[in-house]
Amino acid sequence: MRALILAAGRGSRLQQSEPKPLTPLLGLTLIERIIFSLKQKGIAEAVVVTGYRSSEIIEKLKERETGIKLTFIENPEWEKGNGVSALRAKPILENEDFLLLMGDHLFDPDILEPVSKKNDNDKTAVLIDRDLNSVFDLEDATKIQIKDGVPVDIGKNLENYDAVDCGIFYCTPEIFTALGRTVSEGKYQLTDAIQYLIYKDRLDIRDVTGRFWIDIDTEKSLKYAKQRLLDSLSKTTDGAISRLLNRRISKHITRQLVETDITPNMVSIIAFLLIVLSSVFFALGEWVYLLAGGILVQFSSILDGCDGEIARLRFIGSGYGAFLDSILDRYADSLIIFGLAYGYWIHNEGLLVWALGFFALIGVFVFSYTNARYEAIFESSESRGIPLRRDMRLFIVAIGAIINQILITFLVLSVLTNFEVIRRTVTTRH
Amino acid sequence: MRALILAAGRGSRLQQSEPKPLTPLLGLTLIERIIFSLKQKGIAEAVVVTGYRSSEIIEKLKERETGIKLTFIENPEWEKGNGVSALRAKPILENEDFLLLMGDHLFDPDILEPVSKKNDNDKTAVLIDRDLNSVFDLEDATKIQIKDGVPVDIGKNLENYDAVDCGIFYCTPEIFTALGRTVSEGKYQLTDAIQYLIYKDRLDIRDVTGRFWIDIDTEKSLKYAKQRLLDSLSKTTDGAISRLLNRRISKHITRQLVETDITPNMVSIIAFLLIVLSSVFFALGEWVYLLAGGILVQFSSILDGCDGEIARLRFIGSGYGAFLDSILDRYADSLIIFGLAYGYWIHNEGLLVWALGFFALIGVFVFSYTNARYEAIFESSESRGIPLRRDMRLFIVAIGAIINQILITFLVLSVLTNFEVIRRTVTTRH
Repeated sequence: MRALILAAGRGSRLQQSEPKPLTPLLGLTLIERIIFSLKQKGIAEAVVVTGYRSSEIIEKLKERETGIKLTFIENPEWEKGNGVSALRAKPILENEDFLLLMGDHLFDPDILEPVSKKNDNDKTAVLIDRDLNSVFDLEDATKIQIKDGVPVDIGKNLENYDAVDCGIFYCTPEIFTALGRTVSEGKYQLTDAIQYLIYKDRLDIRDVTGRFWIDIDTEKSLKYAKQRLLDSLSKTTDGAISRLLNRRISKHITRQLVETDITPNMVSIIAFLLIVLSSVFFALGEWVYLLAGGILVQFSSILDGCDGEIARLRFIGSGYGAFLDSILDRYADSLIIFGLAYGYWIHNEGLLVWALGFFALIGVFVFSYTNARYEAIFESSESRGIPLRRDMRLFIVAIGAIINQILITFLVLSVLTNFEVIRRTVTTRH
Repeated sequence: MRALILAAGRGSRLQQSEPKPLTPLLGLTLIERIIFSLKQKGIAEAVVVTGYRSSEIIEKLKERETGIKLTFIENPEWEKGNGVSALRAKPILENEDFLLLMGDHLFDPDILEPVSKKNDNDKTAVLIDRDLNSVFDLEDATKIQIKDGVPVDIGKNLENYDAVDCGIFYCTPEIFTALGRTVSEGKYQLTDAIQYLIYKDRLDIRDVTGRFWIDIDTEKSLKYAKQRLLDSLSKTTDGAISRLLNRRISKHITRQLVETDITPNMVSIIAFLLIVLSSVFFALGEWVYLLAGGILVQFSSILDGCDGEIARLRFIGSGYGAFLDSILDRYADSLIIFGLAYGYWIHNEGLLVWALGFFALIGVFVFSYTNARYEAIFESSESRGIPLRRDMRLFIVAIGAIINQILITFLVLSVLTNFEVIRRTVTTRH
């Protein structure tokens, strides 16, 4: 399935020098985000209609490797309205169903999932949001009135309405018939053609209430969109420390880093080097170094979230990145325990610290190993039990170092991790 | 797709008390092996025609949970010939394509893969083996003469022949027409119906040359079949020590254990307990204990192959078994290193053994971890590089303990495993 993106309009309410589709938004331009979202959902080809400052947009997109085939159509009459722009794509798309998107609407890529499925009655369909309170700028939104599940009117100034048009459409070639008719009558907006389809009873609705989407039209909506994007970076698998502490800080770091050239793998390596440094501090054994090392460990733990956040924001997550990150994490975990054990030993000598350190290392490792094996064998994640993901383990280490209780730290890690591994091994059986 | 198994004949040349389909063969009866092979290849339902000592076979199969739906047909006229037995299944299978198998033929389950695919011309097809030298008892085999890819004659006593009938058929309902005709003419063998199809140009051939199959008719063929089954237990991923040493011994142990009630998981646990014992020996630190521990480690390494071998022989391999085995292996690896370090330390004290032990443990763990992560992320195995699978690592430990060189053993393990992990992390990038 192909997509049609309307990126010809002006968007005069944003205070910026770029044309609206090129609005920078956390490391990518708005239109790049739309294109990468399409790619993520399996769309391999898109047609982009440009108008206002057309060549800038085309040039910018051409120099960027998007991994999706782009065809550009220039519409010199863009000022008339977006219906005219959509009609320009007729020669390319008139024989197929396609997705129609606005070049200034940001959305959660998952919103496209129910859309790409063909409907039985061969009607064009509009994505609607029924949660009017969640619509960012309701006054400016295109409203839809619905009766018994059927759309009966559309427009910005409806008095009675039940939902809002999200600016995404599943189109059948019929849309071009409607556009041809309305444009020839001097009605140049896409909404005019949609209204025509409604009157002919040829429009379906698809309810995507609950999914995020926003029409980026003002500075305020741009700011809100950025915040929502950053909020979406948390993962459902995040542990408690990650959720309550790390993510809150890492998002701010990510917001800065994503605008730079730093790659996610570079961030993984920096977080690892911080752990190397803190392990050296730990190995010195005196309390002031333990304190510094503990703080560094927690900071590295926070930074450890940024690599994935940047990758997801830029749509460049890779299997290799996840692989590298997890290998570095295991070495980091080991170095911390070795550093702590060595630092304790040079001041206190004796067997105990090595024995406890060994069992802490074994527990931490087998815990991570069961996660990986479980995933490899059963192709799903084990998520119940004691929450001992890395955020929690590093937090235990940081606190233990700061309060200078190495043996107790090792004991806690050993008991919790090994107990949890045994629990998993027993319960997985059933 | 359903299967039809002919298990009505007598098989008088085997010196045993059981009817032929109940011949014990490494923990399962011959007909159970056939049924589990079908199940492994996705067949969910089979029709079994019995005759000679019918009730014994039915009773035996009914008391066993095969996980495949079985329907039994008793053929009182079984002594006439197997064509009569096959014809008995007509009321059940006359409207569908099905697999036809002999209840006394053992085969590599993979032989069924090209069979289950329907052919275009709607002909019945016979599986053939063109490698006449590999046929176990060529004299007794059913031969097929082929001209220009088309079968032209079939029979035990053909003078000119190009291949041998493996006793497995992809049947269309046409087979019942052929059987009805030949049986009514007093020709009671399945081969008669196949010959009829050949004369009518309604038989296809499917070449499965290279796949193992055998008609179990004599004590000699039974013995050969057992040997081939045991040989098939080696895995393509086996390391050098496994291939050259462990498998050669583990097969003999498995051959004994598979006839008992011992489960694969019990074997995993016994192998683990042997490692616990050897770690206790190692922890005592004196050479005589190291020697004993080293030998025990190598024996446990051999036994570690038996759990999977028994599981595969009995068709009871499970995700949980693989999970449990790998978790126990990681704890075993850890205990060995801890035992060796402790045993060395009580006699020599000092930091060095703990430091080296730590890095050996880290290397061994991260090595196993990269395997699991690689599999989870890329859904394939990393198999290049230094061969450091568990067979090799335990061999290094066993030799190191026997020659009483703990520090060198740790050093070798640390350097090799960590080097290999780094190599993988770098090369996986490309």
